[in-house]
Amino acid sequence: MNTKPAPSSEPLSKERLRLWLRLLKASGLIEEELRRRLRREFESTLPRFDVMAALSRYPDGLKMSELSELLRVSNGNVTGIVQKLVEDGQALRVAVPGDRRAALVRLTPRGRETFATQAAAHEGWVSELMGDLGEAEIAALSAQLGHLTQSLEKGE
Amino acid sequence: MNTKPAPSSEPLSKERLRLWLRLLKASGLIEEELRRRLRREFESTLPRFDVMAALSRYPDGLKMSELSELLRVSNGNVTGIVQKLVEDGQALRVAVPGDRRAALVRLTPRGRETFATQAAAHEGWVSELMGDLGEAEIAALSAQLGHLTQSLEKGE
Repeated sequence: MNTKPAPSSEPLSKERLRLWLRLLKASGLIEEELRRRLRREFESTLPRFDVMAALSRYPDGLKMSELSELLRVSNGNVTGIVQKLVEDGQALRVAVPGDRRAALVRLTPRGRETFATQAAAHEGWVSELMGDLGEAEIAALSAQLGHLTQSLEKGE
Repeated sequence: MNTKPAPSSEPLSKERLRLWLRLLKASGLIEEELRRRLRREFESTLPRFDVMAALSRYPDGLKMSELSELLRVSNGNVTGIVQKLVEDGQALRVAVPGDRRAALVRLTPRGRETFATQAAAHEGWVSELMGDLGEAEIAALSAQLGHLTQSLEKGE
């Protein structure tokens, strides 16, 4: 919490509310455009892309519970998405020796290749969508959002 | 688009991607906490709150199509939410003279009162969640997000 008392808390809380609405609007607009492009270019979805992104960071595989934990913000139906990735040959389930009920999910070589293509396109789209922001502005915004996220996670 | 070419586009696109992930994370964390509190304190949801917020700005009422247009980012099931608000006595449908198929939806006096209570709590929660940000930081972040949103809307 900020320990300096504001001269009047009324305008500050309105400023914070305005900031929240702007944050929500900016992220909503970008997300909407990324969803549209993933669908159009790759017949994919943002939750599916997020699942593949998580799996791509763990080449040895993840338990379903670990995957759900990693994806808690994106809210997709993880089980259904993994099932579809397996059917499409993009992911596979690997038995864990000594634990018959657990299985690890990981990307297949084809899944890794698919994700690499989509991730490169995704990075290009984000870069294009943020193309009006200069280097200094990006650094400032990024630092401030990092600060905000830290304080939010501290409060959890 | 930024017309100044970057010295190398590779690090800039990574910076922009990092910024997007931070934006997504910050808004996700705040949204998650607001959802939790709306449910706990008011047995309500964010889409329902958003519908009431939109209706509260139009005391004369809105057509369903106008309401859906206003709420395009929040993605809730507008028809179902309005139906529930009507059942709960928080909103009502008003016939439009001369247009038998159209109806305006508006908040009842009780709905306005409910929303005023929830909006005050919501503003307090946002202010608390952003409590670590000082006044100058809020102003800077808000201006930059405003700039980003403008450039995103221009590109649509």
